[in-house]
Formats: sequence, structure tokens, C-alpha cells
Amino acid sequence: MNEFDVIEKLLTPLAKESGALGLKDDAALLHVPLDSELVVTKDALVEGVHFTGNEPAQLIAQKLLRVNLSDLAAMGAKPWGYFLALMLPPKITTAWLADFAEGLKRDQAHYGITLMGGDTTRTPGTLAFSVTAMGLVPKGQGLKRSGAQVGDAIYVSGTLGDAALGLKIAKGEVQNNAFLLKRYQLPDPRVKLGQMLFGIATACMDISDGLMQDLGHICAASHVGAEIYWPFMPLSDAAKEAQASAQLILSGGDDYELLFTISPHLEEELISAAKATNTPITRIGKIIKGSAVTALDENNHEIRLQTLGYQHF
Amino acid sequence: MNEFDVIEKLLTPLAKESGALGLKDDAALLHVPLDSELVVTKDALVEGVHFTGNEPAQLIAQKLLRVNLSDLAAMGAKPWGYFLALMLPPKITTAWLADFAEGLKRDQAHYGITLMGGDTTRTPGTLAFSVTAMGLVPKGQGLKRSGAQVGDAIYVSGTLGDAALGLKIAKGEVQNNAFLLKRYQLPDPRVKLGQMLFGIATACMDISDGLMQDLGHICAASHVGAEIYWPFMPLSDAAKEAQASAQLILSGGDDYELLFTISPHLEEELISAAKATNTPITRIGKIIKGSAVTALDENNHEIRLQTLGYQHF
Repeated sequence: MNEFDVIEKLLTPLAKESGALGLKDDAALLHVPLDSELVVTKDALVEGVHFTGNEPAQLIAQKLLRVNLSDLAAMGAKPWGYFLALMLPPKITTAWLADFAEGLKRDQAHYGITLMGGDTTRTPGTLAFSVTAMGLVPKGQGLKRSGAQVGDAIYVSGTLGDAALGLKIAKGEVQNNAFLLKRYQLPDPRVKLGQMLFGIATACMDISDGLMQDLGHICAASHVGAEIYWPFMPLSDAAKEAQASAQLILSGGDDYELLFTISPHLEEELISAAKATNTPITRIGKIIKGSAVTALDENNHEIRLQTLGYQHF
Repeated sequence: MNEFDVIEKLLTPLAKESGALGLKDDAALLHVPLDSELVVTKDALVEGVHFTGNEPAQLIAQKLLRVNLSDLAAMGAKPWGYFLALMLPPKITTAWLADFAEGLKRDQAHYGITLMGGDTTRTPGTLAFSVTAMGLVPKGQGLKRSGAQVGDAIYVSGTLGDAALGLKIAKGEVQNNAFLLKRYQLPDPRVKLGQMLFGIATACMDISDGLMQDLGHICAASHVGAEIYWPFMPLSDAAKEAQASAQLILSGGDDYELLFTISPHLEEELISAAKATNTPITRIGKIIKGSAVTALDENNHEIRLQTLGYQHF
């Protein structure tokens, strides 16, 4: 299969004629609704960094979309569409690509998005992808990291640390557990909850690089500090069973849960939003004065961490 | 330098606070003007495929932006901004990155664009980049590939084959020539001409993979055929001196010139647009019935080509 066959056979069915122009033009031509702002995020996934390469191609495709959808969720955006760059080494077969396209198709249906354009190229080196995802928010309603206030409650969705444990499984470092492995390979971006948080959350982001590090970003953007409590951390049964360390839970990456702050008087509204979207949420701490982000144990002692989160450099 | 230092020191100065949110949020929040449509293109550049890696980092950065700007030009769009994914192997130094950022800065000023967001990651493999560029067109004025009509004249901007010769120089296959090497390393996207072609061109694209192959895309999208004439091909003095073959001129990639069709009665308007933007243009053939794309020599005989253009697979 040559480049154009790949595009024609596998990717064109994933695109709509309108906007994407059937992937036949130099660029997509998009009409943003008048009452909306455009939310755009771009993430790259590289073999050996973001995935091992041993995963089924379908799962890699789904994770690629989902990490980007998680960024849209963090802004409160409704997913709209995406652009895809494929950098393919010689080992990639047409069967692999077909499986990859099947994963895209599945998540397109699940999240209501379509392919809008992109680029396909070979590479002499590492398998890599880049997705640029687009979402829409009603004007002025985009969630940001910068609005956290002293006294706000800090919340997370779902459970923490599962993906970090799943990565250890994927690397063969610990015993297999299907739930934890899936949490690493196939995150569940909180796109529905995100869209409900406008008017409730004062700041929001998704946890991709570790809770402590990511909370630090909210604090830096909002010029505040934070205290979180280890006994409050939401852990899955599998994570409890694995006796995951505070280090792993508090700084492990890839959870793609939402981390957000709210004024305590809006907790009822938040709980309604969480119920309406069937999303578990947990209050884990509070915003305080200063700039430090501190984790406290059951005796109110600071938990010292070797690292606060994942860094690429 | 860690990931956040790289973003803070080198990339944040390239972004505006509005829209890009100072690169501090999960996504950019963009307000598309009411009277505009959004044009979006995404291209990946990989070391060993799109550049050799021996080029100065500034030039790599500029080419990365320019190949995307050329896609915007092909749609008649005014450049607006871009998202950048950096996939960096261990060999990349902070000095290299600073040089790279300088190249971005230079072209941002030249083309009136800013960085809107992106992602920075390490890779165990090949240096690679992806840019998603955004442009704006007045509603309904985007140029497409699909409007060419039988009887239309076929035009190209600039000269052809220079970049293919420049690539041979970069590979050390032929003698150095500064002009040709620059045409390969630093294309000059025709963004001003592109914006003038609405109401004149019936179809438009940029030549990135070779004239014959790219003209084939216009013909396929428009359900027409084409005839082009070898004696009419616009060649630079350097390409003439290098005695470039028809094969190279007609199928060489990386020119990033515009290829477009117009109804012959609009030639005066086209010439005015070309003059206004100081862009050389040349009529090279005509749109005919059928679906074949044929190149004719000075004796009106068909020129047989081994390949029609560059293919990645």
C-alpha cells in the first residue's frame, strides 16, 4: 500500500466530507459556530515513551485520542474533531494500520468526533503520532488553571495511581492485573464532567504527569498554595491490593482524571454534576495561601516525595 | 534544562497571552472572527525524511513553519497561528533548541503568526516535529482542489525543480549551489498570492510532492485531465545550468509553489494579483477532458516519467 492508498482506504472513511473536504485538500475548512470558542490541544505520543509498542494497535489509537480528549475535558470543551500525524517506521504493516484505524473509528463513535485532516509520513526511526484535537465551548466558558482561590476545596475524579501501576505491569516489573493495565492503556477522559464544571470549578486541569506536579501548575497559575491529605486519596481496590506507595499515587502519571477546585458553597452543585455524568469525585484537600503544595499523612506530617511527577527531560 | 524550563524560557516568549493562555493551560482557547472560516493543516517533519539533520536548527524551524504556511496559502488563507509538537532525542542540546526557537521567532515576525500551544516530549529515536497551522479566510472564500474546468489555464508560481536539485546538494550527490540549496532548505510559501486568488482560481494547491503527481490530485478532485508543456516550464538559471532532467523538474518535490487553474478570461485579473504580490507566475498548460495528466515535449510528444512524484510508502 502506498501513502495515498493508506489515506484513501483507511483514513478517508473516518472523515466527513464537510470541513475535512474528504481529506483531499491541502487543509481543512472549518466553520466554528457563532456562539462558541475553539479549544485546541496538541499531544504527541512516542513509542518507548508514551506506549511500549507491544500494545494492540487499536489500543494505541484509542489512547492517542483519549489523552487529547482529556485536555479538552480539562477546559470544559465538547469534543469536535481531530487532526492526525502518523510517523511510521518500516515495521508497520497494513494490517497494523487497519487495526489502528479500527481503534480510531471506535473512539470516534464513542466521543462523537471525526477526523479532519493530517499527515502520513514514514520515519527511519521511532513510531510516533501527533494529534491536534479541537473542541467547542460556549463563549467565555472555557475552564482555566488560573482561578483557584484560598479556601477552595480540591477535587479529583476517579481513582489515582492505577495507570502508574499499569505501566509497571506493561514493563513486566510487577504481576499482571487486567484492571490496572487497562487504566494505563486506555484512559477514560472525563469529557462529560468537564462540560458540567463551568460556573462550578474555579480552576481545572487533567492529571497527566502526576497529582503533585499538576496541582503545582494550578497553584502557580492561580498564585496560591495547596494542602492535600493522603488518607483522602481515592484508590481503586486493585491499587490498595498492590499496596501502592504514596510516592507512586501522588506523583504517578497517565491517570487522565480531572483535578479541579471549587468554592465550598458550590459542593451541592458539583455533586449534582458528578451524579448526572456518573463520575466518581473525591475531595482531597484545600487551597491555602502561599505557593507550596504539601501532602500530609494521617498524622498531619508532610510526606516527602522524591519526585513530584513525570518529566520528559 | 527540564521540560518546563524549555517551555518557559524558549517557547513562552513565542506565544501571546490571549488565546494561547501563555502556554500554561491544557489547551488554547481561540476566538475565530465572525466573518471568517478556519483553515487548519497539519504536517510532520522527520529527520532523514524531510530534512537531513545537518541543517542549522534555525533553518529546520523555518522550514517546519513554511511547509505548513504553504498549505494555508493553497487554500487562500491568511496565516493566524500554530501548534508545535517537538519530539526530541537525547542528542538535542539546549543551545540547539535556542537556535531552533530563534528560527521560529524570525518567521513568526515575517508571517505575522504566533505560537498557540503544543507538546514537548523526548524520543528514544528520531528527531521529529509536527506543526498544526491555522489560517483564516473570509466565509465561503477558501480555495479548493475540486473546481478546475475543461478549458482552464494551468499556472504555477515561481520556478520548478530547484528544491529537488537542492536536496541532491544536501545529500552530497551534486556540486554545491547556494541558491538551489536554499530553495530546498528554506521554501518561500506564496501566502500573499494565495490570498489574492479567490474569485480568480478555480482550483489551487501547493506543489510539495512533485508537479505531475500534485496536478493529478487537482484533476482527480475536479474530474478532468490536464496537458502541460515542457518548453513552458519556469526554470531558474541555476536549474538550467544544472541541466536538470524533465524527470526531476516534473516530479521533484519540496518546491512549495502554488499550482492553480483559472478561466482564461481572468488572466488580466491574475496578472494584476501576481504583480500586486510581486510573485512570478507562468502558464504551463491547460485542463482537458478525461482524467489523464500528460506532459508534452517541444515536438508535442508525451514525456514518459518513471515516477510522477514523491511517495512516502
